[in-house]
Amino acid sequence: MLSLTIEELVLRANRIRLVLSDNDGVFTDNGVYYGENGEVMKRYSIRDGMGVERLQSYGIDTAVMTGEISPSITMRAKKLKMKHLYLGVSDKLSRLEDVLADTGLSLHELAYIGDDVNDAAIMKEIALAGITACPKDAVDFVMPFAHYTTVHNGGYGAFRDFAEWLISLKISA
Amino acid sequence: MLSLTIEELVLRANRIRLVLSDNDGVFTDNGVYYGENGEVMKRYSIRDGMGVERLQSYGIDTAVMTGEISPSITMRAKKLKMKHLYLGVSDKLSRLEDVLADTGLSLHELAYIGDDVNDAAIMKEIALAGITACPKDAVDFVMPFAHYTTVHNGGYGAFRDFAEWLISLKISA
Amino acid sequence: MLSLTIEELVLRANRIRLVLSDNDGVFTDNGVYYGENGEVMKRYSIRDGMGVERLQSYGIDTAVMTGEISPSITMRAKKLKMKHLYLGVSDKLSRLEDVLADTGLSLHELAYIGDDVNDAAIMKEIALAGITACPKDAVDFVMPFAHYTTVHNGGYGAFRDFAEWLISLKISA
Amino acid sequence: MLSLTIEELVLRANRIRLVLSDNDGVFTDNGVYYGENGEVMKRYSIRDGMGVERLQSYGIDTAVMTGEISPSITMRAKKLKMKHLYLGVSDKLSRLEDVLADTGLSLHELAYIGDDVNDAAIMKEIALAGITACPKDAVDFVMPFAHYTTVHNGGYGAFRDFAEWLISLKISA
Repeated sequence: MLSLTIEELVLRANRIRLVLSDNDGVFTDNGVYYGENGEVMKRYSIRDGMGVERLQSYGIDTAVMTGEISPSITMRAKKLKMKHLYLGVSDKLSRLEDVLADTGLSLHELAYIGDDVNDAAIMKEIALAGITACPKDAVDFVMPFAHYTTVHNGGYGAFRDFAEWLISLKISA
Repeated sequence: MLSLTIEELVLRANRIRLVLSDNDGVFTDNGVYYGENGEVMKRYSIRDGMGVERLQSYGIDTAVMTGEISPSITMRAKKLKMKHLYLGVSDKLSRLEDVLADTGLSLHELAYIGDDVNDAAIMKEIALAGITACPKDAVDFVMPFAHYTTVHNGGYGAFRDFAEWLISLKISA
Repeated sequence: MLSLTIEELVLRANRIRLVLSDNDGVFTDNGVYYGENGEVMKRYSIRDGMGVERLQSYGIDTAVMTGEISPSITMRAKKLKMKHLYLGVSDKLSRLEDVLADTGLSLHELAYIGDDVNDAAIMKEIALAGITACPKDAVDFVMPFAHYTTVHNGGYGAFRDFAEWLISLKISA
Repeated sequence: MLSLTIEELVLRANRIRLVLSDNDGVFTDNGVYYGENGEVMKRYSIRDGMGVERLQSYGIDTAVMTGEISPSITMRAKKLKMKHLYLGVSDKLSRLEDVLADTGLSLHELAYIGDDVNDAAIMKEIALAGITACPKDAVDFVMPFAHYTTVHNGGYGAFRDFAEWLISLKISA
């Protein structure tokens, strides 16, 4: 875990304008349902959806960046009115400048949450100025780059935990 | 948690004619399965269905009020012979008088169970005269407005726990 | 829990020819997946399927009796070569003589596993001469009528636990 | 559990070229979803998929051998670029020489992970020269033939655990 003073966390939380999130293992429990034609569906959480909405009410958008190209996240992002969605990203860090360009934001306005080895490099970068988190059940590779570890597992409220934690820091100022 | 004397709980339980329930997080574990065309399904529990039936046998109906517009709950409510279903409700408290009008009941004849922040206001109101509950894994926002917290999580028997608790209070008189 | 001596359990286990099982809560975790057209599917366990096969190899058949009329169990029973399937049974005890007639067995040749209140009466009857069990997460109503409580929850190996326990008793003789 | 010295484990891990894996209970949590037409789907894990990819980057392929004939694993294996898939295998040990012939590998180049009684015989054989593992929630029958027990349950990262453990042994040399 990365450690910051509470003053620094509050300062950073108040600057956040976008939470960039991994999909599998954050919005889902990493489950992917396959049938005879391949991927059928993934399981999302209404509680996380409420987290996306609550962040919006505090002026914070949510975007998703994932290594997979899963039709379900496109539909879920649409339902939750997410503006940006990056699919099939093999090197997440290399796409970070696209995110900054697409949103017009600076690094210190970004938060990130991810659970697996392909999230480590971008988390390390965003952690320099923004805020980072990982679900309780993330793999060991990402833990060192997270300011916050969620209470619930991925797919079971992890994103919501991060959203409420950010909101709590924000309204504490 | 709201605290009432056992005498008051027994009195109130014996007046209950309708359990008004949230859907996601109570009848489900907040899971929503998405495929390439969006929402495909949600997981309900046969054990909760038995709870609805057992309440019916004690003269207590069940109705659902949810912020979502999910096709699955319409079918589930039909299967379980629920008479009232309120979908896509953004402000639940403001719809409470519709429930009273539709059912011809008074506030003290209502029980309510919900798990998330949008259930807090209506729970606070119903708790004044009726009985309120939240699943074991509800968010912190609703806990203060519940007379009872279930043994099982939402989707895994939470509604059934509440039903059996009400029945136990009722038959103890 | 019902208590028998180990000698009596071994004696009874060696006479069992059929395990009659509830479906929801035993072969499943009580989950039922609903979409816009109602019930879509239920989740079964390969491990329980192996339990059915292992019982067969010891000369013990499996049959299902359920209060629901769920298309999935018909297909699952077919896959596992179960010979008897009783669907939509509202009063299970009253159908017990049909089971005895259909199979040509006597009461002491039956075992039963069930998890909810509608299993209690038939379990109480079969427990007189045969062997009864309930999943670890069964409701309190059936616990008093079970000789054995499984290690795993329903849908997660409960049936298999009961199968292996019966086989262990059988081969210990 | 089978016990080897750390030196022997490192030696063996460095020779492994193929992880042969059971499907149900390893890549899944043994769940199989049935609808009115029979098997609809199974749940796989993105985290395990990442395990297959990480093994590939260390020169280790993955193959699946299963007693079932499930369409979902065919699609999943294709997605993860697995080269060999053995379906509907009733006696796994008897197919071991096919695996060796198909891949051109020797016994000491194989690792195996399985969770149920039909994996025991092939695990016992491969354990002589290669490396074997079972998921944390495997049945008791296979535990004695495993060099390694995973941290997570089948379907929830068990395969990934084994993959990372092999990689750790490999890169420690």
